[in-house]
Amino acid sequence: MAKPLKECSVAVVGLGLMGASLCMDLKEGQRCREVRGVARRTRTVLDAFFAGAVDLATNDLQTGVLGADLVVLATPARTILSALAEIGERLWPGTVVTDMGSTKGEICAAMGALPPAVEPVGGHPMCGKETAGFEAAECGLYRGATWVLTPLPRTSPDALALTTELVLAVGGRPLLLAPERHDRLVASISHLPFLVASALTAAVAEVGDQDPTVWAVAAGGFRDTSRVAASDTQMFLDILLTNRTAVLAQLERFQADLGALHRLLESSDEAGLRRRLVRTQQIRARWKPRT
Amino acid sequence: MAKPLKECSVAVVGLGLMGASLCMDLKEGQRCREVRGVARRTRTVLDAFFAGAVDLATNDLQTGVLGADLVVLATPARTILSALAEIGERLWPGTVVTDMGSTKGEICAAMGALPPAVEPVGGHPMCGKETAGFEAAECGLYRGATWVLTPLPRTSPDALALTTELVLAVGGRPLLLAPERHDRLVASISHLPFLVASALTAAVAEVGDQDPTVWAVAAGGFRDTSRVAASDTQMFLDILLTNRTAVLAQLERFQADLGALHRLLESSDEAGLRRRLVRTQQIRARWKPRT
Repeated sequence: MAKPLKECSVAVVGLGLMGASLCMDLKEGQRCREVRGVARRTRTVLDAFFAGAVDLATNDLQTGVLGADLVVLATPARTILSALAEIGERLWPGTVVTDMGSTKGEICAAMGALPPAVEPVGGHPMCGKETAGFEAAECGLYRGATWVLTPLPRTSPDALALTTELVLAVGGRPLLLAPERHDRLVASISHLPFLVASALTAAVAEVGDQDPTVWAVAAGGFRDTSRVAASDTQMFLDILLTNRTAVLAQLERFQADLGALHRLLESSDEAGLRRRLVRTQQIRARWKPRT
Repeated sequence: MAKPLKECSVAVVGLGLMGASLCMDLKEGQRCREVRGVARRTRTVLDAFFAGAVDLATNDLQTGVLGADLVVLATPARTILSALAEIGERLWPGTVVTDMGSTKGEICAAMGALPPAVEPVGGHPMCGKETAGFEAAECGLYRGATWVLTPLPRTSPDALALTTELVLAVGGRPLLLAPERHDRLVASISHLPFLVASALTAAVAEVGDQDPTVWAVAAGGFRDTSRVAASDTQMFLDILLTNRTAVLAQLERFQADLGALHRLLESSDEAGLRRRLVRTQQIRARWKPRT
């Protein structure tokens, strides 16, 4: 029988928005024995420590994770991959390792290659903000949010139970998915929207280069449709490059749908346009976001 | 010297979100002598009257506008065009006619053909919600919002002054633009985002047809990027078909920008992707919406 979360030392690697918000929730609710924070920059280490977001803080990865019962990797996806390679051999037997990376295929493959005594479980909380970094962290970020867990064939029931306890402790809703299925779904509802928002921002900026008044007339429609384009570039580069195939497939699907609208408008086919727009209007008006 | 707004009878034609919100602000602030509301459906006429949103309500267009000092057309764009044709000959000399239509080229052309004694000024408040109809109306909708006015060559200073007074009375920020320039700018920041949101909703729905779990993992990114797809279909059909050329040009600009991202990702060109994404990240993070 494994330890309950309450008795665990939890090491969170990466004190940006996601990692630091998790630390704050764990500390605030006294959900575990201790919260350790690992950040690359000394400045973040100090900020987290003096803000009381962690019990212990360090910028040394090995020091931070050694002896922890639960390690949570909360950096961009490719940094998670290199951290797994770095810490794998040194973790104590029985250490549960999970992550908050936005893509799961490559990360779960790397987790599968960890030494047998380590207990990996993939994870991805479906929330976030377009503002990144420790300064943007806040208590309650995970409340009500779907938190995908992607167990590996080797994941033990105890490891999955502890990870689930962590998710529930901060108010998340655990949802178990296979890594590939997760990646296909988030390519559609997260990675594609990011590319679309970026291209929209680029298109409006081209108009703005000719006529800056465009920025004065831009209102709620542009604000919301483009919001995620302001997200952290490194995080999204990692996402796009570790989920390339699924993202390209979704992007092509979107381009086909937009192309259909373009052709209907070009030919002034009002009935055809109406059919498509009524359908998406109904789908979107019916869908209710969880958070 | 024209009458100030305070002494005017204002007739608002169309009691959906925009028209009814304007009525409520005028009534609440006692900004004019009387507020008349014209709606097609008897049910809306009764709702507006009993909610105290108007002093007088009718579903007869001619009755509603006859004798008003200021007529505000607040229906979808093509209904504004037919209303102008219907009421033009019957308005009293000196009546100021403005509108809240989302496109200005065709409407201002139709306004230019009104009898010489009528005083037209095009208008378009840059706000709204994805929920439509009288039920969605609220006081304060226009507070802080840019409200584009598109005067015609024949627009008198008095007519422009009264329209400006109306905008300021409900907290809007008047911005004078030529109709064609307005249409080009809103094609970019409003009509294009709508098409993008609709195509995104369609692409996600296709995934949902195979795997409905996509709707459970969808979070803030999809929520915001797709929000405007839930907007009123008739309003947007009118917009697209009365601003077709400008919308097609913006759509093609967007398709080119998205195609560039597609090519960079397909070839795993990280440096090229980073350059583009950093640029749009900075542009979008810098831009601050007014409302």
